[in-house]
Amino acid sequence: MVKEELWAVVMAGGSGTRFWPASRRARPKQFLPIAGDLSMIGATVQRLEGLIGADRILVVTSGDLAPLVSECLPMLCSENVLVEPVGRNTAPCVALAALEIERRAPDSVHVVLPADHVIAPPASFQASLVAAAEEARRARHLCTLGIRPTFPATGYGYIEAGDELACHGEFSAHHVERFVEKPDHARAEEFLTTGRYLWNAGIFVWETRTVIEAIRDHAPEILEPLEVAGSSTGLEEVYPQLPALPIDTAVMEQATNRSVLPISYAWSDVGAWNSLEDVAPRDDQGNSYAGGTQVVSLDSSDNLIYADAGELVALIGVKDLIVVRSGDALLVCPKDRAQDVKDIVERLKKEGPEFL
Amino acid sequence: MVKEELWAVVMAGGSGTRFWPASRRARPKQFLPIAGDLSMIGATVQRLEGLIGADRILVVTSGDLAPLVSECLPMLCSENVLVEPVGRNTAPCVALAALEIERRAPDSVHVVLPADHVIAPPASFQASLVAAAEEARRARHLCTLGIRPTFPATGYGYIEAGDELACHGEFSAHHVERFVEKPDHARAEEFLTTGRYLWNAGIFVWETRTVIEAIRDHAPEILEPLEVAGSSTGLEEVYPQLPALPIDTAVMEQATNRSVLPISYAWSDVGAWNSLEDVAPRDDQGNSYAGGTQVVSLDSSDNLIYADAGELVALIGVKDLIVVRSGDALLVCPKDRAQDVKDIVERLKKEGPEFL
Repeated sequence: MVKEELWAVVMAGGSGTRFWPASRRARPKQFLPIAGDLSMIGATVQRLEGLIGADRILVVTSGDLAPLVSECLPMLCSENVLVEPVGRNTAPCVALAALEIERRAPDSVHVVLPADHVIAPPASFQASLVAAAEEARRARHLCTLGIRPTFPATGYGYIEAGDELACHGEFSAHHVERFVEKPDHARAEEFLTTGRYLWNAGIFVWETRTVIEAIRDHAPEILEPLEVAGSSTGLEEVYPQLPALPIDTAVMEQATNRSVLPISYAWSDVGAWNSLEDVAPRDDQGNSYAGGTQVVSLDSSDNLIYADAGELVALIGVKDLIVVRSGDALLVCPKDRAQDVKDIVERLKKEGPEFL
Repeated sequence: MVKEELWAVVMAGGSGTRFWPASRRARPKQFLPIAGDLSMIGATVQRLEGLIGADRILVVTSGDLAPLVSECLPMLCSENVLVEPVGRNTAPCVALAALEIERRAPDSVHVVLPADHVIAPPASFQASLVAAAEEARRARHLCTLGIRPTFPATGYGYIEAGDELACHGEFSAHHVERFVEKPDHARAEEFLTTGRYLWNAGIFVWETRTVIEAIRDHAPEILEPLEVAGSSTGLEEVYPQLPALPIDTAVMEQATNRSVLPISYAWSDVGAWNSLEDVAPRDDQGNSYAGGTQVVSLDSSDNLIYADAGELVALIGVKDLIVVRSGDALLVCPKDRAQDVKDIVERLKKEGPEFL
């Protein structure tokens, strides 16, 4: 496949509430250096360098967040930033971007990526995208990447892989038997044992033409209003009426022309503070650091610490805690309660919206 | 005794390192609202209101901290702020202030108070000062207040009280048998059982003339250079040569004309973060708050939280922690490790002096 036919769509409209207090309404997770020196969206685009140029990358976000896209991605021209009038989950976002790419490059293949994942190394990632793009061209399939599980995760959806359809270098494409919701621990153990189940990373590769036809077939109520709405004024009217559905439910679970490429390189959706442990540097005591953190610690181990640059965090005799200091707020929480940060965010909607 | 004969000396030269990161070199504990809405020194002076006017209160501090004294005590005129060229523990400080009061009011009785204790209620405290002043006049004794222990504290020095010497209203003055260093737990239990041992609060009441004579008798190497040094230029030369001794060791332990008045009202030297629990407000879950703290908590109990005004602290599933956020630093530490904050301060002298 000719490289110039490959485009990318980066979905950057999320709110990242599980990363409060670093992630705020005004600057969600994807615009923060949560897992390295670059913002997560900056790292996402950098990871494509050499394969997909900035002129072939579209970012979809909200009007509020568009200035942050420009700040984090200065190489991106403004016509490559698509603004959704309101967030309606991923299906409308995917459709909006696909229609825009169709206008510019009707024969293209494109990749759809969340702005806030950590994936390494970039060379392996790019090789898998090329393989998936070849499969998308060959079979006219909706292709996904499926992460080979390394533990019985209950926080991810799974894809059951079936027969092998084709081989592309080191990668193989498999029929998708089915998508499975987040399992309980026992089922997750089973999934891990069979070796047939893969984590659904929410990364898609398809011909622009093929995904538009798939949305027309399975979610015409999303595609047709967007086709009619030519201008941004049209979008303002049409968008709030679209069903807020994930692309998985609206299209992938309905389609039959779908395949999955199992991959084994390092991947994390960095879904909550505790998941940073897998990607952040650690000291001899097992403490992990993210952000601009400076730490002095005594008898403290296996903590995860994030702080704004210039802030000192001192720990004495604590273990397995998440300690986050950002802006005007501070969070202290055991690692195994990281998911409950969303409950604090819910409380703050009533009790302290100025801190969101 | 005539009220106008009663003066006070407030010792405010301390560094409060156990209250890092709220207490810093540039603004130690006594100048912070650690235990209420007022700075600790502000509360110390307010506690004397109606008994000792601002014109009869001297504050002894360092040159660096003198501007904070004026800020926290705007009613104090500058000639009532005595500046030590260097800190030399409490004996030189007591001598310096006594000589100054002697110049202004040779017939006076004066009270010596640390700037950073919490005592309540003020009326009981004032009544005990009056009783001690009467005893100081009557017997020409060096009088101290001794706190009746409420638990076997190992963090305080003790005073063994002997026979009753006199009665002043509800207070009695006792002969001081001896001063005892901080005991281990077993001895502290014994002390509590006998009922003869009192906590040494470091609060003294004496005739100005009597204490000067006592220092002349027991620590002439402190008194005589200070008598010679008339001007502040003289002080600059003399002060660094003085032995850095506590008044307890230099004078009280040597003298025979000494008495102690047992008292039972609420007192705390607020020696480390965990001691704030006794004086700070608590919520239903036993969490205590100091400073300008705003808190949102989930399943969290018996924590002590201090934060600068405007800062939100969110806690999930934690217990018995000290969480302090002030300036550019943050501390997380179990309550039973509060004493170890000084070790962090020691480390920072080398690793991060800008945070001290």
